[in-house]
Amino acid sequence: MARKLILDVDTGTDDAIAIMLAALHPSLELVGCTTVNGNTAVENCTDNTLRVLEHIGRPEIPVHQGMARPLVRWTFPTPRKEGDQSSRIHGPHLPLPKTSLKARSSGAVEFLIETYRAATDEIALVPVGPLSNIAAALALDPGFADRVPEVVIMGGSHGWGNVTAAAEFNIWADPEAAAMVFQAGFRKVTLVPLDATYQASLSHADSASFEALGTPAGHAASLFVKHRIAAYDAVQPLPGGGHAPIHDALAVASLIRPEVITTEFLHVDVETVGTLTVGRTVIDTQVRTEAFRRKAPNCHVAFGADRALFLSLLTEAFARRG
Amino acid sequence: MARKLILDVDTGTDDAIAIMLAALHPSLELVGCTTVNGNTAVENCTDNTLRVLEHIGRPEIPVHQGMARPLVRWTFPTPRKEGDQSSRIHGPHLPLPKTSLKARSSGAVEFLIETYRAATDEIALVPVGPLSNIAAALALDPGFADRVPEVVIMGGSHGWGNVTAAAEFNIWADPEAAAMVFQAGFRKVTLVPLDATYQASLSHADSASFEALGTPAGHAASLFVKHRIAAYDAVQPLPGGGHAPIHDALAVASLIRPEVITTEFLHVDVETVGTLTVGRTVIDTQVRTEAFRRKAPNCHVAFGADRALFLSLLTEAFARRG
Amino acid sequence: MARKLILDVDTGTDDAIAIMLAALHPSLELVGCTTVNGNTAVENCTDNTLRVLEHIGRPEIPVHQGMARPLVRWTFPTPRKEGDQSSRIHGPHLPLPKTSLKARSSGAVEFLIETYRAATDEIALVPVGPLSNIAAALALDPGFADRVPEVVIMGGSHGWGNVTAAAEFNIWADPEAAAMVFQAGFRKVTLVPLDATYQASLSHADSASFEALGTPAGHAASLFVKHRIAAYDAVQPLPGGGHAPIHDALAVASLIRPEVITTEFLHVDVETVGTLTVGRTVIDTQVRTEAFRRKAPNCHVAFGADRALFLSLLTEAFARRG
Amino acid sequence: MARKLILDVDTGTDDAIAIMLAALHPSLELVGCTTVNGNTAVENCTDNTLRVLEHIGRPEIPVHQGMARPLVRWTFPTPRKEGDQSSRIHGPHLPLPKTSLKARSSGAVEFLIETYRAATDEIALVPVGPLSNIAAALALDPGFADRVPEVVIMGGSHGWGNVTAAAEFNIWADPEAAAMVFQAGFRKVTLVPLDATYQASLSHADSASFEALGTPAGHAASLFVKHRIAAYDAVQPLPGGGHAPIHDALAVASLIRPEVITTEFLHVDVETVGTLTVGRTVIDTQVRTEAFRRKAPNCHVAFGADRALFLSLLTEAFARRG
Repeated sequence: MARKLILDVDTGTDDAIAIMLAALHPSLELVGCTTVNGNTAVENCTDNTLRVLEHIGRPEIPVHQGMARPLVRWTFPTPRKEGDQSSRIHGPHLPLPKTSLKARSSGAVEFLIETYRAATDEIALVPVGPLSNIAAALALDPGFADRVPEVVIMGGSHGWGNVTAAAEFNIWADPEAAAMVFQAGFRKVTLVPLDATYQASLSHADSASFEALGTPAGHAASLFVKHRIAAYDAVQPLPGGGHAPIHDALAVASLIRPEVITTEFLHVDVETVGTLTVGRTVIDTQVRTEAFRRKAPNCHVAFGADRALFLSLLTEAFARRG
Repeated sequence: MARKLILDVDTGTDDAIAIMLAALHPSLELVGCTTVNGNTAVENCTDNTLRVLEHIGRPEIPVHQGMARPLVRWTFPTPRKEGDQSSRIHGPHLPLPKTSLKARSSGAVEFLIETYRAATDEIALVPVGPLSNIAAALALDPGFADRVPEVVIMGGSHGWGNVTAAAEFNIWADPEAAAMVFQAGFRKVTLVPLDATYQASLSHADSASFEALGTPAGHAASLFVKHRIAAYDAVQPLPGGGHAPIHDALAVASLIRPEVITTEFLHVDVETVGTLTVGRTVIDTQVRTEAFRRKAPNCHVAFGADRALFLSLLTEAFARRG
Repeated sequence: MARKLILDVDTGTDDAIAIMLAALHPSLELVGCTTVNGNTAVENCTDNTLRVLEHIGRPEIPVHQGMARPLVRWTFPTPRKEGDQSSRIHGPHLPLPKTSLKARSSGAVEFLIETYRAATDEIALVPVGPLSNIAAALALDPGFADRVPEVVIMGGSHGWGNVTAAAEFNIWADPEAAAMVFQAGFRKVTLVPLDATYQASLSHADSASFEALGTPAGHAASLFVKHRIAAYDAVQPLPGGGHAPIHDALAVASLIRPEVITTEFLHVDVETVGTLTVGRTVIDTQVRTEAFRRKAPNCHVAFGADRALFLSLLTEAFARRG
Repeated sequence: MARKLILDVDTGTDDAIAIMLAALHPSLELVGCTTVNGNTAVENCTDNTLRVLEHIGRPEIPVHQGMARPLVRWTFPTPRKEGDQSSRIHGPHLPLPKTSLKARSSGAVEFLIETYRAATDEIALVPVGPLSNIAAALALDPGFADRVPEVVIMGGSHGWGNVTAAAEFNIWADPEAAAMVFQAGFRKVTLVPLDATYQASLSHADSASFEALGTPAGHAASLFVKHRIAAYDAVQPLPGGGHAPIHDALAVASLIRPEVITTEFLHVDVETVGTLTVGRTVIDTQVRTEAFRRKAPNCHVAFGADRALFLSLLTEAFARRG
């Protein structure tokens, strides 16, 4: 039986690949997409999400537009240098044809609250953008955390940052929201940080193999991967160059085959105050004897990824037509 | 010709090994020791330092007592759980005989300022405890940073913390002082963090080989290493157990043979405000193209260490008598 | 024509008096009440609000329950000493008979957003508790600030605090929400801080005169005032003792007769980070020449109040039956 | 018998008047001046101090130059708008003839520590600039607070700020130092904030009466008062204009005749972290019953001043020649 999920996205090229994986893989059933301010303005994220769904022939999947800014802050936190690398990875619009599809009338937060109130099946919640919508649902519905069986988050980092020296974009872009999510007491939380996604980066050869599938999804994935490699090579090249991480899709892949990531069960919290460290996922990795452990683990953190398995899951999905 | 250095210590078992290396290795000339509040109260640090120097037959090396608390804070920052692992590694007194040696009458900060004002030779400054004395010298003498040719700091961490999930003890214990030091514009700063010192840990076999040297230093080093292994195994065991890092001595060793550590030239700053991250050394390790690099490198950060070379330098020194 | 308002309350004895003034005064039309976590848990606030409305014969006024905690924080900020004076002013339940009235099914935030979207008349928004509901509406609806014609807030202080040395309870209890509200660009914001409400305190004689009205509202108001005087005298007596401020009702009164408060148009913001000052309303009162003024005024701040006029407005309302 | 004092200054026109009062009034004996970065660079403050002492015929009073910047921060905290009013009140040099007098060779912090170690008489410490020197003495000498019998500080404010909406310049300019001083446990601390100094402002008539004294001090005081009135009128005029506070001199005057200020004994601390409130003196003025008082009083805070008495003390001093 397919696993149900809701995907919360700020679409973006890697979000687009994640959407296609969630919508097309036979082991998954994409209940809906919610959009959030992040890689680009929320209206663009919504439009991009609809373009993807139409392109792959899944126009029936509902899209609900969500928060237009971080939960508390009116803009992203400083410091972030204007024109820095993050804003260079994604443009405002995906290179897909315009769509006449529209988002549903109810907002993302309302959709999340109502869906989990009504759910009889288990529906995983997979946020791969800033956590503003999820935090708003927690703020408005005291029972929300109890009703969501599993959360898989793409975001954060341990070994380095991609927007500051200490922080990854999704968490940094709404640190108060992220702190709320990690402190909310969800039954199961998995974090897929940069440390994992960099181990499953895709290459030009992978892009070519997607194109060769001869499907709409394969064609789009090929385009997005090429675009990402060009952007990473220009700004923050991976070792050797010529490949790029597809962050968000790895989080979705872990719902199909958990072994695509290797996790440790650790305590995770988010710095909201630090001048240099705002938005950092503080992951307590230190080996200690039990007597000296400070805080209870609350999150399964992925530090490893299986690139070959990830690629095979994407290929399996993108060979299909919606 | 021997390299001159001043060693700023909060002695401590690993400080003690660092002092013996600096005082006995033929490539080094230990101009003096300054003490600072840290592993134990500054009076104990001073007494421990004097015990070491008398034990190895170098009573003429001057010791100057320094700051009794962090530069700004009246105590170490919270959060730190009482009775946690840090306070378990060191006791107040080293297991060496009492000494009648006394510290000099002038204080550590005065000694630092006056020594560098008068110096005609190059004297490296090697702080291996909280940076309170160094920061006080910077505060009191606007020309201090220009007069010190090189600073080698043991402290900080990137991959994990040993006092909180984000921070190492020396930097966390006086974060404002540490931030001042990294921002001061010293000509050359090298940082030896936990990431390096954990790669040059010593074992019971190493302890036995020190004992077999048949010297006072060899005997003391053997004791200290055994004590450290027991403490680490009880609290925060290294993989496999049975070995322990000798943090401070690695910083001293890098003055004798720079290749004992492997460094990268990066930007380092210290978080002083963060709730979860206070005292973290924020090291900007991300690979970026030049156009997107944010801040100029200011520190040579050691991420690797050569255990065999480290051991041979210690052995060479501890075979000697003062 | 009566002025329409929505009252956002954390009922509370002074909230109860404010509700009765809003529901009974002929110059006002109370469109609805929204409740919020504050003086007591939100469920109690809702129940207390319903008790008041039933007691005064206005059961038709809709009540919508709102946020159960601050927008971002899971509890109120520290530092606050347990058992301090704030928690002594209000108990969990008002001394009124139980009610079988129920809150409406839609939540406070949804009610606020929908009401202002649909409104053709001007409806003033009068929050007299923590600003969590208002901030959530701002977060969820990017057009909310533009649709609300006027906000009158009871909260904040300039000369002293009542929960810390620097902060008043309503603002301190959700500082991020309060900062959002002052920064939101509402067309008109009026702040009624402690500095004003302490100038319109009521006495035992005033309580007796309410009782003498012989109405349900007069009787309840008499009780609440007596209760407040006893609490203030025990904890934070006003000069001479024997009287107490009725904070929230003064905010409502200013909609009937603006001259009941004396305001200055100033810049107001809220400290969310400060260790000692979290939740302080930072009001820029300094006299400066125009060339040196830093930030544009955004709030009409009440520093004075007309006690006699306030008392007459209350009396006029409480003489009525619902 | 004259009261001994050390005056810690960032001279500045009001510091200059304070120096003249301390050096000339028969009830005081000025043991020495220490200078600190503040109204202008410390070298200018030293030079200005020496000019004043030469001009009034007291060249023998020793001047010791102190800290060139705040204790921890490399510059004053933001936010402060460039070209704002504070930088307009004082220029770099006083309008007095150049002097060939020199500061003593030992620094301010060393002088403070050594003087109080050696003192057999009681010497009041009167800092009227940023508290960097005093904090450095506390940091370097653990016994310093116990050896100083009394501290009288000009700085801070309660009702308004003069550099931000929340903070006064002297405290804001080195908030960590100020926090250290209030937390140090000095036996007696008196604070003379803006709230007091604005009640003892001087006018053009007062300036003329100083000139009429026909003395060097009278002439200089007349000049300084005129300069201050012009600056205040241009930037932050007092009600009605044509007068200006002489902050620092009021602190000195309170040593001659304590009744020149009216004080309350309260808890005072300094915000070092707040975004909007950094450098605010948090004065706990709220009336509470004893059971609910949070922190023990540590400071006598002046909220009132006797302008006539202040003027008569200045006149008595400035009529004299050194």
